[in-house]
Amino acid sequence: MTLMFILNSNDSTPLYKQLYNQIRAHVLSGKLPANSRLPSVRDLAAELSTSRNTIEGAYQELYAEGYLYSKQRSGYFVSALQQDASPLAPPPPRQRGRQPAPATRYVYDFHPARLDPQSFPAPLWRKCFLDALRASTGDLTQYGEGQGDWRLRSLLQDYLERSRGVSCAPEQIVICPGLQQSLDIVAHLLQAQHMAVAVEDPGYHLPRAVFHNHGFNVVPVPVKPDGLDLAALRASGCSVVYVTPSHQLPLGYVMPVANRLQLIDWADSGGKQIIEDDYDSELRYLGKPIPSLQGLRPLGNIVYLGTFSKVLSPALRLSYLVLPQALLSAYRDRFRDYFPTVSLLEQRTMVQFMEQGHWERHVRRMRILYKKKHDLLLQVIARHFGPGVKVVGQGAGLHVVLQLPDGNPGEAEILRRASLEGIHLFPFSATCASGESAVTRLLVGFGGMNAVEIEQGVELLSRLCD
Amino acid sequence: MTLMFILNSNDSTPLYKQLYNQIRAHVLSGKLPANSRLPSVRDLAAELSTSRNTIEGAYQELYAEGYLYSKQRSGYFVSALQQDASPLAPPPPRQRGRQPAPATRYVYDFHPARLDPQSFPAPLWRKCFLDALRASTGDLTQYGEGQGDWRLRSLLQDYLERSRGVSCAPEQIVICPGLQQSLDIVAHLLQAQHMAVAVEDPGYHLPRAVFHNHGFNVVPVPVKPDGLDLAALRASGCSVVYVTPSHQLPLGYVMPVANRLQLIDWADSGGKQIIEDDYDSELRYLGKPIPSLQGLRPLGNIVYLGTFSKVLSPALRLSYLVLPQALLSAYRDRFRDYFPTVSLLEQRTMVQFMEQGHWERHVRRMRILYKKKHDLLLQVIARHFGPGVKVVGQGAGLHVVLQLPDGNPGEAEILRRASLEGIHLFPFSATCASGESAVTRLLVGFGGMNAVEIEQGVELLSRLCD
Repeated sequence: MTLMFILNSNDSTPLYKQLYNQIRAHVLSGKLPANSRLPSVRDLAAELSTSRNTIEGAYQELYAEGYLYSKQRSGYFVSALQQDASPLAPPPPRQRGRQPAPATRYVYDFHPARLDPQSFPAPLWRKCFLDALRASTGDLTQYGEGQGDWRLRSLLQDYLERSRGVSCAPEQIVICPGLQQSLDIVAHLLQAQHMAVAVEDPGYHLPRAVFHNHGFNVVPVPVKPDGLDLAALRASGCSVVYVTPSHQLPLGYVMPVANRLQLIDWADSGGKQIIEDDYDSELRYLGKPIPSLQGLRPLGNIVYLGTFSKVLSPALRLSYLVLPQALLSAYRDRFRDYFPTVSLLEQRTMVQFMEQGHWERHVRRMRILYKKKHDLLLQVIARHFGPGVKVVGQGAGLHVVLQLPDGNPGEAEILRRASLEGIHLFPFSATCASGESAVTRLLVGFGGMNAVEIEQGVELLSRLCD
Repeated sequence: MTLMFILNSNDSTPLYKQLYNQIRAHVLSGKLPANSRLPSVRDLAAELSTSRNTIEGAYQELYAEGYLYSKQRSGYFVSALQQDASPLAPPPPRQRGRQPAPATRYVYDFHPARLDPQSFPAPLWRKCFLDALRASTGDLTQYGEGQGDWRLRSLLQDYLERSRGVSCAPEQIVICPGLQQSLDIVAHLLQAQHMAVAVEDPGYHLPRAVFHNHGFNVVPVPVKPDGLDLAALRASGCSVVYVTPSHQLPLGYVMPVANRLQLIDWADSGGKQIIEDDYDSELRYLGKPIPSLQGLRPLGNIVYLGTFSKVLSPALRLSYLVLPQALLSAYRDRFRDYFPTVSLLEQRTMVQFMEQGHWERHVRRMRILYKKKHDLLLQVIARHFGPGVKVVGQGAGLHVVLQLPDGNPGEAEILRRASLEGIHLFPFSATCASGESAVTRLLVGFGGMNAVEIEQGVELLSRLCD
């Protein structure tokens, strides 16, 4: 035994652990070969001028983990670990993760997914959380219901019926941590019978990614001013379609009821499936909300998706899914053993928020707040952009689309200029299946901006588009 | 126009909405044919003895939704909806969901996933939540980082290195709402190159379900007292394995380091992949925790999974995943557009809980609490079960396995008797790939039971096994 062990009492690592580390390294590297005998506890303690407890602690830990074995009265020996066959690399140097630089703070953030930064009802949410925690402490040591808290599903049933004409039972509702999770479930349920999914073009990029990840062939179908091009859908050969009929993402078009009925007919013919994403139905500033497709055909092949991300908070990760009756048994079959995916405390906080009436009041407040921003945005656009610009998709949601006249600098150049001026724009082309848009269009989100920012940001933006 | 409309002012539905509903139903049923003209607002108001606003409200809503169209000076007409081609079914009668009967309250709940019902640190969690809410309100109106809050990942890196020898950077960590979500990500990343996954038999049923749902061939591999049978793994032809090496679920075996190194060798040969689930490593009552596989080979093909469900709460849905460097670019590629799946508020609450030192104190408290229950359980088993019974997997976690001697009534009969006596047992056979166990074994969870329940429940159980 010619190996040296060095114990450093100034090191914060306990002495026994220092010895453990050194012996373990020698065992793993092969410097201490299999079946070699270690010094006795007494001898090594004397040699290193330390207590026997230190040596005993290291040996016992190495023994417990299988690096050493012991023989009665003979002490500890090195186990055979096949270390020759497996010369282990030393662990990489400790990677002290550095917090990434904070995201750029834009002066004018036109990202369409931004909410008003002061809009989160923190005092009410705090109160509801405390109520929920008080009532739920005993339930926090068990897994909850896989589909989500029954009371929340029951409140959602009632809310969706009143506000969106959705007709369902709580048994059809699944609480999810966001759209991608809802679509994961839907993709799992559909992939046995369906190969291709039609999506809107332009359209939301996230569903494309989810279906692609599940091995679906994702087929873009053009969008017209009355929504998805139904003739193109029929010609696509797809048996599943993902649509945003009440507020097309990103163009804001509303599918009229005649087209809705045709779409439902399409789904009824030969076991096809509609996935209706009703992501921001609460935010409609002109006229009444458009009832859902699901409400037109409650027993049809329609999966209905909704979320709390647009009106309450996208950071809470709280959304829901209404499965058609026809998919329920497959759902129960496939996900029987699954646990819920949203915190019980957060679900119960939302129950309190809805039961105490805060949710519906919050919806009304947000509708007024965003309508003001929306109306101001349109005024400012009219003032600063020439008559050649066309505003598309106004009257709802958190963004509009500007279609620029010919002779503009093009999207890439406008985004480059905007970035230099502290303006954040989400590229419209990212919503296009081809990655390009035939005409230059700008996604102008207004949710996160205040009145001054809208005034100044739009003026600045208009100059960059010349 | 011979259709009758009836408005009932005692109904809680607004009058305009009553009229809207009736006209809409007639349009959809075809009783009001396409292009037929509706009565003028003034005439219908007079006929129904109501205000013009009521009629105007109904017409405008129907117009906005496309059921009606209007002609200058001529009033409103019914749109062509192809209703002949699509006789819509009336909506199903409102399904007033009834809350399902509460789950049976067992007198003695031996379910292995139960935590101590008083163990959730509600006052500390409340304080941490309030701290997190105060500091995060501005961030609640944006989507957060897809992989999870950076600070939480950084704290986890540090904790996992100290407690489990895991060596990684925060960039490799993904915060998830539980094991199934972690495995969903892993399955997505592996399914391009791998077809079959080996799982432990007996083993946890949830991973089997997740991999099955992702189209993997799930191959059971026997478990021996030194963990997964490595010869059987090599013979299985699988290129992915899911293992619980530090506390085999359900048998509680610990894989010795020699076998760990062999398993790592297996993974290193030809691009195979280990999924290491370290679900309850904090709860070890005899000797020191066994360091993770990942720590033995930080640059190897090892995905490491952990959770807060066993020590803190399974209802919070908070777990984590450490990806190997080799899978990082595929992860970023596939999930680039995905949003986080755990509430930012809950992640930040956990950050506070860890930063303020509560987590490590809670771990120590729980280890002491469950060690007491564990030791008592073993005493009571020794007292009431005969010498023929064998206790498997003691010394860690929240359950042990009892292997009964020949001549016992069999699992099905014991479960039947137990149920009649108010005893909850999770069937051991559900962890076996075949659904059957060669010998009768009982999963005896003790986490949710107090000392009196352990004493009485085990005595009662022992009588049922005769």
